[in-house]
Amino acid sequence: MGQRPLETTESELLVCIKCRGVAAHGDEDPRRPGRQLYDQLVEQDLPEGTRLRAVECLQNCDYGNTVALRGPGRWTYVYGNLDAGQHADVLLEGLALYHGTEDGLIPWRQRPEHFKRNCVARVPPVLFTEPRLDPENDS
Amino acid sequence: MGQRPLETTESELLVCIKCRGVAAHGDEDPRRPGRQLYDQLVEQDLPEGTRLRAVECLQNCDYGNTVALRGPGRWTYVYGNLDAGQHADVLLEGLALYHGTEDGLIPWRQRPEHFKRNCVARVPPVLFTEPRLDPENDS
Repeated sequence: MGQRPLETTESELLVCIKCRGVAAHGDEDPRRPGRQLYDQLVEQDLPEGTRLRAVECLQNCDYGNTVALRGPGRWTYVYGNLDAGQHADVLLEGLALYHGTEDGLIPWRQRPEHFKRNCVARVPPVLFTEPRLDPENDS
Repeated sequence: MGQRPLETTESELLVCIKCRGVAAHGDEDPRRPGRQLYDQLVEQDLPEGTRLRAVECLQNCDYGNTVALRGPGRWTYVYGNLDAGQHADVLLEGLALYHGTEDGLIPWRQRPEHFKRNCVARVPPVLFTEPRLDPENDS
């Protein structure tokens, strides 16, 4: 478990199961909200070529339930403020769109609204083109 | 430029050159603060086995100048709120510590103070051990 290498074309949805963000069922559920979100996703069909993985902590602890999308050759995106009761479908939609790109950049207009407003950070793929560095001006 | 594959043991310091965080020299410098930070780092000796790369945007735009540390087999860490005039040395110290680990996890007590308080997010390496998922309880 957990040590299977990422296949060349596979995208991943990483879900923090320790998050204490918005829960799906109020205070009654003993599971942490991040775990609730993960458990909802486990029950659903994932887009072909993608997989779901639980993560201990993505260290975005102040901004709600948090996930990351990543895949070989793609920018990694971290999203926060996810509602365990509301956002499983949005994540699956976003994961399909993400996996449908070559570089992980979902065109802005197609991007789910939650992704537009709750991107925490992104990190380039291993191979990426560095921006041109003009010597003096505002690069 | 920019397309050299990451060597097996190399760690990277990715610096967003578009950031509009704290500048090094007030308003006089036409370069963006992120670019100022990058330019300061370019002039210094990096820890052996590491390299510096400019990035267009790490999309942590509301939380100051932002960088990421990453390397094969290591957790990727994103840090924000960097001061272009103050934090180049801290970053080089942190990069050396990061590169000195096998998995990117700098022991807490050794971690630079700025890293302790300004971690934006982290993402696991491709190969990582998923946490144990107990069926019902608070995982």
